[in-house]
Amino acid sequence: MGNSGKYIFGVDIGGTTVKLGFFDREGTLLDKWEIPTRTEDGGSKILPDIADSITKKIDEKGIGTEDVAGVGVGAPGPIDNEGVVHRAVNLGWGVFSIKKTLEDILHLPVMAGNDANVAALGEMWKGGGKGSSDLIMVTLGTGVGGGIITGGRVLTGVCGAGGEIGHVHVEDNEEESCNCGNKGCLEQYTSATGVTRLANRKLAKSDRESVLRGGEVSAKTVFDAVKAKDTLAMEVAEEFGKYLGNGLAVISSVINPDTIVIGGGVSKAGEILMDYIRPYYEKNVFHGSREVKFALATLGNDAGIFGSAKLVLDAVL
Amino acid sequence: MGNSGKYIFGVDIGGTTVKLGFFDREGTLLDKWEIPTRTEDGGSKILPDIADSITKKIDEKGIGTEDVAGVGVGAPGPIDNEGVVHRAVNLGWGVFSIKKTLEDILHLPVMAGNDANVAALGEMWKGGGKGSSDLIMVTLGTGVGGGIITGGRVLTGVCGAGGEIGHVHVEDNEEESCNCGNKGCLEQYTSATGVTRLANRKLAKSDRESVLRGGEVSAKTVFDAVKAKDTLAMEVAEEFGKYLGNGLAVISSVINPDTIVIGGGVSKAGEILMDYIRPYYEKNVFHGSREVKFALATLGNDAGIFGSAKLVLDAVL
Repeated sequence: MGNSGKYIFGVDIGGTTVKLGFFDREGTLLDKWEIPTRTEDGGSKILPDIADSITKKIDEKGIGTEDVAGVGVGAPGPIDNEGVVHRAVNLGWGVFSIKKTLEDILHLPVMAGNDANVAALGEMWKGGGKGSSDLIMVTLGTGVGGGIITGGRVLTGVCGAGGEIGHVHVEDNEEESCNCGNKGCLEQYTSATGVTRLANRKLAKSDRESVLRGGEVSAKTVFDAVKAKDTLAMEVAEEFGKYLGNGLAVISSVINPDTIVIGGGVSKAGEILMDYIRPYYEKNVFHGSREVKFALATLGNDAGIFGSAKLVLDAVL
Repeated sequence: MGNSGKYIFGVDIGGTTVKLGFFDREGTLLDKWEIPTRTEDGGSKILPDIADSITKKIDEKGIGTEDVAGVGVGAPGPIDNEGVVHRAVNLGWGVFSIKKTLEDILHLPVMAGNDANVAALGEMWKGGGKGSSDLIMVTLGTGVGGGIITGGRVLTGVCGAGGEIGHVHVEDNEEESCNCGNKGCLEQYTSATGVTRLANRKLAKSDRESVLRGGEVSAKTVFDAVKAKDTLAMEVAEEFGKYLGNGLAVISSVINPDTIVIGGGVSKAGEILMDYIRPYYEKNVFHGSREVKFALATLGNDAGIFGSAKLVLDAVL
C-alpha cells in the first residue's frame, strides 16, 4: 500500500442504509452522510453505489484520488483477512472479495471487516476504549454483537467469525432456539429482546407486584424500573448480569483485555449495568484478567465508520 | 532486528530443568539438551546459566554469534509483548524484562513468551497444528495449560495472561477451590488430576461395579477402562468431554480457529478423547466455527523449544 493520501473514507454497510464518513488521518470526522442499501439482485448494486457516492464526495471536496489513503468497509457478515465475505444474508451476498471488487471500481486501497469487529476497532480508536490495545466490545442491541481487539489488531479468525460473543453458550437448560440455531446463547438473555424475554418469563411465573405489570415491557422499561428499585426488575437485572458477567469472564480469561466496552441500545441504561455485571465477572474471571476497565461505548452509530477508517490507517502505515 | 544468522536457540524454562534446542531457520532441531533450573536467590541464576550454556554451544559448534539470529525463551508465567515477566512463582521471579536481561548478557536478539503460548506456536509450526494460522492448544497435564494463536500470532493479552484456557469457568456448582482460587475452572475436571477426581467422586457415590475399583485411579487407568467399555469409566469420560467440549465451544466461538490441538499427559489416551469432546463441542459452538480440525499434539516436551525458536523467526523476518 504505502499510499500517503491525507484523507480516508470509512463505510458501514447496514441492512437498510450505508453510513459513510470522510476522515483525516488523525481521525477527525470531517463529513458524514448516508445512502440507501439496495439489496436487490443479490446485493450487486451496493458496492457500485458506495463507489459512486465516494467519487462524488471526492469531487465535492475539490480533492483528487491521490489525496485519499483508502476506503475501509464494515459489513454484517464473516469477512476474512483478505477482505473476502463468506455470505452476508442481510445484504443478499454470497462469497466474493469486497476488497477486490471495490478496488477495481475505485482504484484506491480498500480494507474490509465484519461490522461488529470494525465497531470495536472504532471504539478503541476514538470511543470508550480509547488508549486500549486489548479490548472486548459487546453490543447489546436487538441481537448481541461482539468484537475483539488483541495487540491492537482485530481478532478476525480463520473465516471472519472471530469475536462472535453473542453466540457463546451460557445456559444448558434453554428450550427455545436462538436465531443461530443453537440453544442457550448469550444473546438470548442479554440483548434487548433477551432482557424483555427474561422479564416476561418472570412476570408470567407469579403474581408479584411490579411497575412492569400491565405496561410495555422492554429493556428500557426494565432498567428504568431497576432504577426505581422495583424488586422484580432488579431480579431480572441480576439474571442479565449473571449471564453477561459470566460470559465476559470466560472470554476475558483467554483474551486478557485491559478494557471491556458495552454498547448498543441496552447500554443506554448506563453505569447501573456494571453494578450487575461486575460481581459475576470478578468472581469467575482468571485473576490475571480481573483488573479490567468497564466502559460504555461513546460513538453510537458512528463506531463502524470510525473503525473502518482505522482499518485503512493500520494497513497503510 | 533484521539479524540474518542461520541458527536459532529455543529455550523452555521449567521448574526443575531448562530445555534448550539449536535450530536452523527451517525449524530442523539440530541439537537439544537440558540444564538444571536453579531457582535459589529469586531465580537470579537462571538466565545467566542459560546464557552460559548457549555461549558454550556456540563455541562447540564452531560458529560465531553473527551466525545466530536470536534466542527465544518460554517461561511459566505471564510475559507481555515486550518480554517482561509479571511474576513467575515457580522460578522465584518478580517483575523484570527477560528480553533485556538476556540481551545484555548475550548481545543477541531475545524474544520471550509464556510457556503454554509458546508451546502452541511450536505445535502450529511443526506439530499437530502444522499449516494452521488460527489455533487453540490445550495441554491436559497436572493442570490445564492453554495457548491461542490468531492470524499466525500468539494471543498474549495486555499483561501476558492471554490463552488461560485452564481457568475458564465451566461449573457454577463446584465447592472445592481450584489452585487459582476460583471455583469451577476447566482445569478441575479435565486435567489428569481432574479426571481422577471425577472418577473418585463417581466411585464413592455408588457400589457399582467397575474395573477401576480397588486399583489405582488415574487419567490413564480411567481411559484404559473406557477402551475396555467399563460403564462407570465411560460416564467419567462423558463428563470430561462435556466440560472440555463446552469450554472449547465457547472459546472457539470468539477465536474462530481452524485447528484445536490437544496435548499433555491425558492426551496419550489418543483419538478416543475426541469421541467424547466433539459432540458437546459441535452442539454448542457458533456455526461459523463448527468446522474445526481436532488434532493430537505431536511434539511432546519439545513443543516449547520449537515455539520459542519460532518466536525469534517471526520477529526477525
